[in-house]
Parts: sequence; C-alpha cells; structure tokens
Amino acid sequence: MAKTAINGRLHGNAVVGQSGGPTAAINATLAGVIRGYFDNRAADGAIGKLYGMRNGIEGLLAENLVDLGARFSDGDGAPDEKEISRLEHTPASALGSCRRKLPDPATGEGRETFDRLLEIFRKNDIRYFFYIGGNDSMDTVAKLSAYMKDKSYEMRLIGVPKTVDNDLVVTDHTPGFGSAAKYIAVSIQEMIRDCAVYTVPAVTVVEIMGRDSGWLTAAAAIGRVVNGISPDLVYLPERDFDTAAFIRDLRRAHEHHPNVVVAVSEGIHFADGRYVCEGESTSTDVFGHKQLSGTAAVLAAIAKRELKCKTRSVELNLPQRCAAHLASAQDLLESAAVGSGAVAAALDGVSCEMMTILRTADGNGEYAFEIGHSDVAAIANKAKVVNEKFINAEGNDVTDECCRYLLPLIRGEAAPEYINGIPDLFVL
Amino acid sequence: MAKTAINGRLHGNAVVGQSGGPTAAINATLAGVIRGYFDNRAADGAIGKLYGMRNGIEGLLAENLVDLGARFSDGDGAPDEKEISRLEHTPASALGSCRRKLPDPATGEGRETFDRLLEIFRKNDIRYFFYIGGNDSMDTVAKLSAYMKDKSYEMRLIGVPKTVDNDLVVTDHTPGFGSAAKYIAVSIQEMIRDCAVYTVPAVTVVEIMGRDSGWLTAAAAIGRVVNGISPDLVYLPERDFDTAAFIRDLRRAHEHHPNVVVAVSEGIHFADGRYVCEGESTSTDVFGHKQLSGTAAVLAAIAKRELKCKTRSVELNLPQRCAAHLASAQDLLESAAVGSGAVAAALDGVSCEMMTILRTADGNGEYAFEIGHSDVAAIANKAKVVNEKFINAEGNDVTDECCRYLLPLIRGEAAPEYINGIPDLFVL
Repeated sequence: MAKTAINGRLHGNAVVGQSGGPTAAINATLAGVIRGYFDNRAADGAIGKLYGMRNGIEGLLAENLVDLGARFSDGDGAPDEKEISRLEHTPASALGSCRRKLPDPATGEGRETFDRLLEIFRKNDIRYFFYIGGNDSMDTVAKLSAYMKDKSYEMRLIGVPKTVDNDLVVTDHTPGFGSAAKYIAVSIQEMIRDCAVYTVPAVTVVEIMGRDSGWLTAAAAIGRVVNGISPDLVYLPERDFDTAAFIRDLRRAHEHHPNVVVAVSEGIHFADGRYVCEGESTSTDVFGHKQLSGTAAVLAAIAKRELKCKTRSVELNLPQRCAAHLASAQDLLESAAVGSGAVAAALDGVSCEMMTILRTADGNGEYAFEIGHSDVAAIANKAKVVNEKFINAEGNDVTDECCRYLLPLIRGEAAPEYINGIPDLFVL
Repeated sequence: MAKTAINGRLHGNAVVGQSGGPTAAINATLAGVIRGYFDNRAADGAIGKLYGMRNGIEGLLAENLVDLGARFSDGDGAPDEKEISRLEHTPASALGSCRRKLPDPATGEGRETFDRLLEIFRKNDIRYFFYIGGNDSMDTVAKLSAYMKDKSYEMRLIGVPKTVDNDLVVTDHTPGFGSAAKYIAVSIQEMIRDCAVYTVPAVTVVEIMGRDSGWLTAAAAIGRVVNGISPDLVYLPERDFDTAAFIRDLRRAHEHHPNVVVAVSEGIHFADGRYVCEGESTSTDVFGHKQLSGTAAVLAAIAKRELKCKTRSVELNLPQRCAAHLASAQDLLESAAVGSGAVAAALDGVSCEMMTILRTADGNGEYAFEIGHSDVAAIANKAKVVNEKFINAEGNDVTDECCRYLLPLIRGEAAPEYINGIPDLFVL
C-alpha cells in the first residue's frame, strides 16, 4: 500500500476538519492550514488538493467535502490573501463542527465506520488528515491513526489543538484560549468600573466557562499585574468550594469597598464532588459531560441571603468564546502558526501527533514561542488543570505569578475589518 | 439676587454630575463638559471653577466635590488632552452615580433637601449645573430649576442626556445608545456564527436590556442591512407576546435552518400585562421599576418543551452597557458634543433645558446631526418606544427601515488605548 514518495514526499490529497466547540481563533488555524497548503503548492506540490470536511468527521463520512484550494485561490491559482485574512478574523468554525465521538474500531459499528473512512480516503486519494479540535478530537486522530496503520494505508494524521478551556496537556497553552482570556480580562475590567459607580453595598458574581479547569476564570484577574484592578474574589474548580468560607470572603471584601466583584468558574464543586449548581442541571452532552449553568445565580442567591445586599449574576456565556472583535493578536498568530506548522510537519513525515506550542524566552525573559508536536495518543482524554502555585493559599484568588504567566497570551488587539459598523466576517 | 453679568455672561462656578445606570459613553459626555469648560476659560472665563459631584446629587448634598479643572489641567493650566481622551474612552460614570430621586420640594423632606442644595450653591458660588443622566435625572433638573427660579437664585441648569435604552423623547436618540447598540449588533453577528456550526436543531434565545422600549433589542437586527444576517426572530416590548405565535414562529424558522437565534427584550409581556419572566422577579428599584431577568430562560424552556430540541439562553447583561472596547465612534462623538454643547448653551443663557440630538441629512441623504436643546420639564418622566413602522406586521421582527435608521449610530470603532493587552482606563 505504500505510495511512491517523490523527492521523499508522500503525494496525495489532504482533508481538514474542525470539531468541538467553536472559538474566536479556530478559523485562524484553518487559515494556517490553507496557507501551509499554498506554500506546499509553491514548493513540490506533494499535496494535490486540500478538501474541507463540513461538520467534522460527520461531513467526511457523508463525503460532504469542499475544495478549499479552489475556494481560496485568486483567478491565477495564487492564494487569495484577502479572503484568507477574512477567514482568519471570523469566529466559530467556518467548516461547521460536530460532537461525534468515534466508536471503538474493534466493535461492530466502529468497524463499519472506520472501513467507510478508509474507503473514502482511498477513493479521494486522501493521504493527509488535519483535525482541528480539543480533547475529544485528539481521541479521533489517535483512533484513526492506529486503524490506518493497522490497515497499512499510508497516511499522515495530525491533530491541531484548539480549545478556549486551555485544558490540553503537553502544549504550553491552546490556540483559542488567548482570545477568550482577553475577552474575559477586558470585560471584567469594564464590569468592575460599571459596578463601582454606586455606593450601596453589592455583590456581582460573574460566571466564566470551564468545567474542570479554571484557566479562563483565572484570566479574569490578569489586569491586576497591569493596573492593579481585578475581581475581589476568584474561585476555580481546582479547589473545593466552601459556602462558609465564601460568605466570610465576601464580608472581608465589603470591608474594603461596597462593590464586590466575584469571578467564578461554572464547574466549581463542593468537597463531596457535587457541583455548586447541582440540582439546576440535568442534561449531559454526548460525551457524558454534565451541562452546567447557573453557578453565578446560586452564589448570588447565597450572597443575598447572608449579606442582605443587592446582588447580580452575570454569565459571560457564548460571547467569551466567539468575540472575534476582541481577539488576542498573539493568539491569532499562534493559532495560524499551528495550522501552517501542521502541514509542514506532515509533509516532513510526522503523523499521529498533535501540534504543540512551546513557551520559550529570549535573553530578557520576554515571552516567545515555538511550534512543536507530540504523540496525540498521550494527549487525548487527559485534562490539564491550573497549577497549584497559581492559586493562592485561601483558594479565593489566583497569584500574580499566574497573571504574569497568562498576560503574554492576551497581548495585541486583532479585530476583523468593519464595513458600515458591522464586522466583515467570512461565510463558506 | 441677580449676578452682575460681565460681557453678558453669568459669572460663577459650575458643577457637573452623572446619574442613573452607567453607559460606555457617559464619560465622553463628561469629557465634553470639561472641554467646554476649558474653551470658556480660553474665552472670557465666565465659569471660574468646574466641580464634579461624586455620586450625583448625593455627593452634592454631602459637598463631596472634586475640582475637575485642576484634575484635567496640565502643568500650565491648559487642558490635559491625554487624560481627557482617556476619560472619554472609559466606561461607566467616572464621578460615580446614584439613583436618588429628589422628593417634592413642596413637602417637608423635600424642602429641607432643596434648601440645603441652595445653601451649597451659594456657599460655592455655583451658577452652572450640568446633570448627565436619563429620565429620572431630567426630573431632578426640572425640579431644581423650578425651585431655584422660585428662590430667585440666578443659575443655569442643563440636563445632558444619556441612556442605553434610547427612551428619552424629543431628542432623535440618546448618547450611550449607539455604543450599546453596536455591542449588541456585533455580538449577535458573532453568536449567529457560533450557533451555526452544528447541524442539530437548536434554539438560542438572547436577552437584551430594555424594560419598556425595544430599541436595544431592535439593534440586534442592524447587521441585516449590511450583510443579510440577523436573528431569525426579534421580540420587542412594544408588542404583546403570545406563546402560541412564538412556537409557530420557531417551527417556521426551523424549516429554513437548524440553528434558530431569537433576540428578545427583557421587558416583553403578555396581552394581560404580565411580564413573560413574571414570578421569577420580585424586587423593584427605588423608582418602583420592576427588576427583570430571566426572560430568555423562560423562552428557552418553552422552546425545549414544545420543540424538544437543544436550547440555550444568553443574557447580554452588564457588558452591553459598559463595553467601551467596542464603543461606537459616532456615539462617542455625539456624546462629547452634547457635553461641550451644554456648557456653550448655558453660557449663552439657556437654562431648564435638556440637550438634544437632531438628525439632519446632507444633500445625499447621508446621516448628519446637530446639537439642540429643549424644555427639560416636557421630557422628564416620559418614555419613547420603538415607532410602529419599525416593527413588522407579525410582531416578530423589525423592519429594514428600522435597521437603516439605527445603522448610522453604530458606525466607527472607538476603542481605548491598550497597555499590555489591557485597556488603559481612567480612574478619578
């Protein structure tokens, strides 16, 4: 089954997909893959065509493919930089997404699915597979890699990370996180100003995404190392939540000023494992993850009952993961780099790996990064939580070291072009 | 009691305050007042000092005043343009706010309050009073004007409008509305992309501020006249909400695509006057307005029960009124213009008036505006709702004419300066 390698390259077509929850930067990674493809065309052209699968693996199974090379070419076959840039600044997955988890290839339904995928790869001479996604998507890449190897179908499969949650292991951080973190860090600065205008004691609880890891909630505090302003209290799911301690924390905070602002992760839980919002949530997603909401509302109700003050709960909700208008320039840069890096690595023979971001530093201790890759099977189905040293002793805030660690990831403002006051977003 | 007018000007000091809910543009108006003050200084200097009252009328009663002329002067007494610009791009009320409604000056407590204010004006030789606020603040200006006239204390009192709700009469629109509208219009464009990535039928309900008037909710549709994309359904409080019609609307929308997005005003109500969120809201603010929340959650629950599909509710909440990072350049320009215009008008002898924005048009039908003023007593305690012609016949969307009317108000992007990824906001 081995393909004849010309100039040491595996020749064939490529397919790219996006999976899992959208982010403000997942299209920047797709733009990176497209740029990598055009770079390859300008060189030896080992990759003939670049297909996009609509709605991830579901679209691939239905052969719902779009010729991205054609879509992003100008009249002369060169990359249409304007369209690629529009894509880069458009939130959510331009190709669509899915939440389908592939079954075990050793069992009946799984065997059928994997055989069908092999058939589609053969039929379309697909030799390169790029899957942009989070933890569950890396599981897909690992399973597919093992299966194709087992069937001796020569192919390069690369996982390209994205997740606002920043919960993938090995990589220093994940593309998409920086933009969500920037939206949260900036919005909380604005909300702290908003809450500060009245003199009446009040508690405002802001709920931030993050089921098991508190990275996004930690981002609420970043501004402190720039201007000294951050939420009074920050609760992450990495620490058990204690109601009595929470009430004590609020009373202490009210001694300093009347307008207490609390940042809280949707996934905080009590010592016995029960989610704080439990009872208010009944549904689970297809991966069996509990769907959470209402944590801020529960904390606000506790605050109102105990402190008898005005309270308000705010869920940052969808905007935190799709606010491309406030994307981090650093994040978009890195998101594009893992995309183009994935194509370069695959052309060099890399397979069954996930692209990673390595944090490096120049002589002045300034932030710098490099793109690497690491065994995808060792990354899938693991979750990275916030480091112990990044959480304060009381478990009600993050440390300045944490803020300084996160700060470089939200640097720079990268907005889409605006036409008539409305962002000029890409539609496939 | 008449002051000696030099060169036809009333000489004395001025005080400015901010009241009511914060907006992303209320500090731009304060910056306008400060610029107007420095312009006066450069001319005949009729206004000696410009004081800011902390927390509105409450701070004035406590003589909690700050010398804004000194605070915003550079070393040589000229305006510190950098600081004024920082203020201009900072959300919420830099001076602080209050929700105190002045009592009737004819009754006991009211007489005491108004006598005390007159005493403070006399003591500080305050002859100019600028109050930036909404409906209730205009009531304050009207009452104070009548009282000071009655006491023959020569003084110029001007109301300067702000409100995200756009519910003040006479003025074409209100400063602060354009920035909130822009945040909503842009965020909904992003959320529509986010919701579109999956193929499973779903309903996402986005709740937008607006107790009695649907202007902000209407803003969710503006993008349609630019790129053809807007929420599938838009419900304003100007029309009675009918659950059966809502379910029918949702089913029809699902015939077109699986990801239905609904924009809804927090204040929608049934034909019998009950708020849709009723039962979930118990508290009222000091003006007796019912505090609402949870309308989107109620609609999402109805959609889930009837359509048996995935649903999600999003409350745009505080960010819609304080997202200075996405302020409308047009709004900031007009907000500053009513501020400087108020000082100029007062110097010209205007009193007991509210500054207004007049929509004018050049020969090409393009948007243009002028600053005017109108009797504040005729504006206070009235509310402007969305015009009948701006709502479609079914009452489930706004018209393109409405979108075109609103579009000029969200033009241009006016962000604060960023330092290290964090906006460089002003603190008094």
